[in-house]
Amino acid sequence: MRLFYGIDIGGTNVKTGIVDEAGQILARSSQKTLAGERSGEAILDSVLAQLETLNKEIGSRSDNVLAAGVGSPGVIDKARRTIVRAFNLPFINLDAAAYLESRLHVPVTIGNDANLAALAESRIGAGKGAESSLTVTLGTGVGGGVVLNDRVYSGFNGAGCELGHVVLVENGVPCTCGRRGCIESYCSAPALIRQTKEAAAAEPDSMLGRAVMSADKVTGHTPYELAEAGCPVAAGVVARYQRHVGEALANYINALNPERIILGGGISHQGQAFIEAVAGIALQEAFILPEVEPPTITAAILGNDAGIVGAAMFAMDNLDDRQRP
Amino acid sequence: MRLFYGIDIGGTNVKTGIVDEAGQILARSSQKTLAGERSGEAILDSVLAQLETLNKEIGSRSDNVLAAGVGSPGVIDKARRTIVRAFNLPFINLDAAAYLESRLHVPVTIGNDANLAALAESRIGAGKGAESSLTVTLGTGVGGGVVLNDRVYSGFNGAGCELGHVVLVENGVPCTCGRRGCIESYCSAPALIRQTKEAAAAEPDSMLGRAVMSADKVTGHTPYELAEAGCPVAAGVVARYQRHVGEALANYINALNPERIILGGGISHQGQAFIEAVAGIALQEAFILPEVEPPTITAAILGNDAGIVGAAMFAMDNLDDRQRP
Repeated sequence: MRLFYGIDIGGTNVKTGIVDEAGQILARSSQKTLAGERSGEAILDSVLAQLETLNKEIGSRSDNVLAAGVGSPGVIDKARRTIVRAFNLPFINLDAAAYLESRLHVPVTIGNDANLAALAESRIGAGKGAESSLTVTLGTGVGGGVVLNDRVYSGFNGAGCELGHVVLVENGVPCTCGRRGCIESYCSAPALIRQTKEAAAAEPDSMLGRAVMSADKVTGHTPYELAEAGCPVAAGVVARYQRHVGEALANYINALNPERIILGGGISHQGQAFIEAVAGIALQEAFILPEVEPPTITAAILGNDAGIVGAAMFAMDNLDDRQRP
Repeated sequence: MRLFYGIDIGGTNVKTGIVDEAGQILARSSQKTLAGERSGEAILDSVLAQLETLNKEIGSRSDNVLAAGVGSPGVIDKARRTIVRAFNLPFINLDAAAYLESRLHVPVTIGNDANLAALAESRIGAGKGAESSLTVTLGTGVGGGVVLNDRVYSGFNGAGCELGHVVLVENGVPCTCGRRGCIESYCSAPALIRQTKEAAAAEPDSMLGRAVMSADKVTGHTPYELAEAGCPVAAGVVARYQRHVGEALANYINALNPERIILGGGISHQGQAFIEAVAGIALQEAFILPEVEPPTITAAILGNDAGIVGAAMFAMDNLDDRQRP
C-alpha cells in the first residue's frame, strides 16, 4: 500500500506521521516547535529528524513512502510552493517544499493547515462519502476549509477561503481583519465570551451576572452551563449566539451549496443539542427549495490527527492529479 | 472542428445556436417561448424544429454536432437530469434531457441558465484566462454563477449558488427568499429604486425629490443621472448603494477567493466609474494579505449570446469530462 508523510507544523508542536492511502497513521511523532528559538530551516531540519525516526519504526515499509505533505498556518504561495508568511512562526518566504524535497527525495506539497485538516475531516471523518464539504471551526477565530469534488479548494492564489470574514452584520462589531460585523466577530469563542460578559454586566444580579463576577475565568462554556442551570439571561446569550451561527451557516449554504457542513472547534463540543439548534436555524434560513436535498450539518469527529492525515492526503492528491492526463 | 447545440430557454424567448469549440456561433435562431400557451413538451418540440433549421443552414457541417446543452431557469436535478421547477415556465419535473436525446441522438446536458451564462462569460468573455470566476448579475434580482477550475460549480445538488441570498445586514430589509438583509435586498435594481424613492421622500425639495415626484418611472439610472447633475441627495444614494455592493463583493472574495469577479446586469452598465468604485471598496474590505494577488473585478462583456454559448460550452465540458479516465 502507498504511504505518505504527513507534516503538521503548528506554533506549539510539530507533528509528523506516516499515513496510508486510507488515512490510517502507521507511525507518529510530536515535538515542540520552539518557534521563538529557531530559524525556519532549523524547524524543517527537526521535521527531517522526526521522519527519519518514523522510517526506522516501520522498517522496510518506509520504501513505500511516495510523497510528503506539509500543513502550515499562514499564507502559502501555491505556484511557488513557498510559505509566504506564517503567524507565530519564523517563516518568511520560506522555500519549504524545495528544502524538504532535496533531502527526502519525494515530491513535497504545502498547504494551509486549516485547509488540510478540513480535507482529512471531509474524506475520512464527518464528511466521509460527501463529494463537497465545508469545515467550519468555531474557536479562537472562525476558520476552516472547503473541499470540492473531493479536493481542497484554496482559491486561485492558494490563500484559501476566509470563511470567518464574511460580513453578517453590516457596520457591526469590529473584526480582527479590519472590517466590521464579520462572522468571526459574532461566532468565535472570544465573541461568545464578550457577549456573555456584556449580558452579565447588564444583569449583574442574574445567575450569569453573579457567576461572571466571581469566576476566575469566563469561557465559551460558561453561558451554556448557566443556561442549563436555569438562568434566563444565560439562555438569552446562548440563543442569540446560536442565531448568529445559524445565520452564518445559511450564508455558507447559499454561497457554496456544499453537501455537508462540519462544525469543529471548542464550541462544537457543546454536543448534539448545539449542532441541532444551529442546523435548524441554518436550514430554515437558507434558500433551499423543497424539491432539493439540503446539506447535512454535523460535528467534526477527527481530533488532533486531522492535521497529519490531511497533509498526507494532500500529498497523495497532488501525486494522483499530476499523473492524470 | 467539433460543434455543439446551445439552447437557452427563457420565459420570453427560446434561443438556439450551433456553436464551435471556441464559442463562436455559426448559426442562431430565436422564437417566442409562449410559455402560457404551451406544454413543456411543446416548447421542447419547437426547440427541435429550430435546431433542424439551423442544421440546414450550416449544411453538412451539422454532422459535427456532438452534444447539446440546455440552459433553463429554475432548479435542475443534476443526477436525474430533469428540470424540477422553472419559474414562469410550464416545467415541472420535466425529463428534458431524455426527451431531447431520443430525438437529437446526441448527449444532452441541462444546467441553470444563469450558471451557463456565467460559464460563457468566464471562458470567452471577461473571465478569459482565469481558472476561477464569479459572475454576479445586478438586475431584477442578484444572481449569477460560479466557475471553478474552468467548470461550472453548481453545488452538490445542482441547485447552484444563491449568491444574492447571503445576508449582509442581519435583521435588515425583508428579502424575496424569506430571510432579512440579503445582498439581493440591498443591491438589486428594485432595491436601488426603493433606496432612491426613500431618499426622495425624505428630501422632497432636493433635485432627486423633485425628479422622482415628477417622473413617470424611476429606474436604477435615476440616482446616477441626478448625482451626475450635482444633486447631493442622489450622490448619497449612489454612495450607500455602492458601499453595499462593495461589501457584498468583499464577502464573495473572502468566501470563495476567485481569480476574477465579473459584474453583469443593468446596473453594471453604469460604466467603468461604477466598476472602479465598487472594486475599490471590495478590495479595501476583503481580507487579502499584501503578499497575495487580489482578484480582478471587471464588467461582463458578452451580451445576450452568453446563454447560447454557455449552454454549448457546458455540453462540451460534460462530453470531455465523461471521456476522462
